Amino acid sequence: MAPLLKDELDIVIPTIRNLDFLEMWRPFFQPYHLIIVQDGDPTRTVMVPEGFDYELYNRNDINRILGPKASCISFKDSACRCFGYMVSKKKYVYTIDDDCFVAKDPTGKDIDALAKHIQNLLCPSTPLFFNTLYDPYQEGADFVRGYPFSLREGVPTAVSHGLWLNIPDYDAPTQLVKPRERNGRYVDAVMTIPKGSLFPMCGMNLAFDRELIGPAMYFGLMGDGQPIGRYDDMWAGWCVKVICDHLGLGVKTGLPYIWHSKASNPFVNLKKEYKGIFWQEDIIPFFQAAKLTKECDTVQKCYISLSQQVKEKLGKIDPYFVKLADAMVTWIEAWDMLNSKDSKEADANGSKPKGK
Amino acid sequence: MAPLLKDELDIVIPTIRNLDFLEMWRPFFQPYHLIIVQDGDPTRTVMVPEGFDYELYNRNDINRILGPKASCISFKDSACRCFGYMVSKKKYVYTIDDDCFVAKDPTGKDIDALAKHIQNLLCPSTPLFFNTLYDPYQEGADFVRGYPFSLREGVPTAVSHGLWLNIPDYDAPTQLVKPRERNGRYVDAVMTIPKGSLFPMCGMNLAFDRELIGPAMYFGLMGDGQPIGRYDDMWAGWCVKVICDHLGLGVKTGLPYIWHSKASNPFVNLKKEYKGIFWQEDIIPFFQAAKLTKECDTVQKCYISLSQQVKEKLGKIDPYFVKLADAMVTWIEAWDMLNSKDSKEADANGSKPKGK
Repeated sequence: MAPLLKDELDIVIPTIRNLDFLEMWRPFFQPYHLIIVQDGDPTRTVMVPEGFDYELYNRNDINRILGPKASCISFKDSACRCFGYMVSKKKYVYTIDDDCFVAKDPTGKDIDALAKHIQNLLCPSTPLFFNTLYDPYQEGADFVRGYPFSLREGVPTAVSHGLWLNIPDYDAPTQLVKPRERNGRYVDAVMTIPKGSLFPMCGMNLAFDRELIGPAMYFGLMGDGQPIGRYDDMWAGWCVKVICDHLGLGVKTGLPYIWHSKASNPFVNLKKEYKGIFWQEDIIPFFQAAKLTKECDTVQKCYISLSQQVKEKLGKIDPYFVKLADAMVTWIEAWDMLNSKDSKEADANGSKPKGK
Repeated sequence: MAPLLKDELDIVIPTIRNLDFLEMWRPFFQPYHLIIVQDGDPTRTVMVPEGFDYELYNRNDINRILGPKASCISFKDSACRCFGYMVSKKKYVYTIDDDCFVAKDPTGKDIDALAKHIQNLLCPSTPLFFNTLYDPYQEGADFVRGYPFSLREGVPTAVSHGLWLNIPDYDAPTQLVKPRERNGRYVDAVMTIPKGSLFPMCGMNLAFDRELIGPAMYFGLMGDGQPIGRYDDMWAGWCVKVICDHLGLGVKTGLPYIWHSKASNPFVNLKKEYKGIFWQEDIIPFFQAAKLTKECDTVQKCYISLSQQVKEKLGKIDPYFVKLADAMVTWIEAWDMLNSKDSKEADANGSKPKGK
């Protein structure tokens, strides 16, 4: 049997090192196409194990392809991965960090994380009413008594957010306080995050439907030259959830797990995060209160509307948010430039990036 | 070590049969006081195994204690259990059905469901923002990166909703379609149901804080003389969740599991449920849209306000809801009658029910 969605899904990996971790993923990833976004020094060579089908973009490629619009893509931060979302021509994207290994389920079997994400994306979500037995579309589960029948068709799933065994995704203060904490709890569940509820989206192990939500998966301005880091995926998650709620799309979280091997340095993280830690106290109420009008009937329109609200409301907190709001607009322009009908035809006629 | 909350929790059991199932629960329940609500024929004798501390109320007792207000307590339906909530003088209540046995965790160990409910009730809930690693207060878990620090104290937990292995809590149509489905998935998680999201609350395995939410735990008018059954706990759940959201209280669901031994007859269930199945299509949008003003600063005031809205909005669907709205008011009157300062003193001076 051919791997599911073999020709409809790209795997996006941001990296600054050789991709030896792919060896472990070979049985699961090799049938798929990889988009590698090389961060940092573009003259450095990133080694990709033999036998993988990939294209690789470094900073020079990003600058060449996007021209002045490349300013919206972060440098020296894994936020650069969203460039990969933009250049993909597939319906689905899975993104994973290069310190994430294959986890084992409680029976000791290797978990094919990608297959589970695909399953999550291909079955509906239920954001309008909570199901106490979790995802009702899973084998052996269903809607419980009292679940309205009119809501049992669910809504299309736009995002599948996977979790992490071993090193949990903690902020710097929690890392500092609990340096030895490891996540060993295998929770055998997938669930829809209810409409109206925001969540902290982690980019380590994340899949989404590009056609449904791609233009909102912008990982913001982080890293080099920016006052903040480690909020790239959070930013995307807040925007994505507000837009999914507005457009009637679903966000799932839970299975699959990956094995997160390496805790990042909490002191370095604290430096990157500390502005975010107090800014988020204003950002989250902002997103909880954000309103999209019925004229916002595409992801792009929703995102532009959000960017205006960011500039107006969050711009008062710090000039950074004015810059970010402008970058959100640039991102949409760049997305549309690469994803218009014309650009797809040009792509079909050549202009291939590095890779094989 | 003394059992947790030994003198602060009552176990409420509605029944029509001998309580042999308590033998299995003896190691866990024996230290606690039981309130048994005998449904159906009051002349029948319900046998309670030796060694349990209990009080037992049959229909004659309910009529004697509540007088004309006894009309709000259902007859020939397990909804009668809410009488037990009303006569309890404890801070916490756990209620369980008599076809629920002790379940085993994946290691084969008996699950002390009550202890887990108590743990759920004694630690806070997090309804304002979703935590992807589930209950952050559990051993080995915490708030993930991006969770606002200002929300990490959580809110008081009012309800702990436990689940069921073996026979899942399905409605009659699902029972009919999937007669052999069993729930074998042990999901090792407790989570807070986000603010603004309703859920189907099942009364089989349920604990709550009477002081925080007791007056909203009314199981409605079901069974004998009513056009509907099997919506008692659902009704309570909708009301409870709207009021918890308004008052800033939390509702948790997930662990602990009990072993649900016996599927009820789907044909009988269909007869009880069929009006509910179409009514709920209107009831749920009603509760999703229900508004409580800031004057509603107690559970009682919230509940009376909801009863007015039920009469006005749902009364149009069927005269049953007018009757139910009136019963909601009677319930609050009866609750306050039994739970006023005076009634507590009278209780301390005697007037004991049957039991030992």
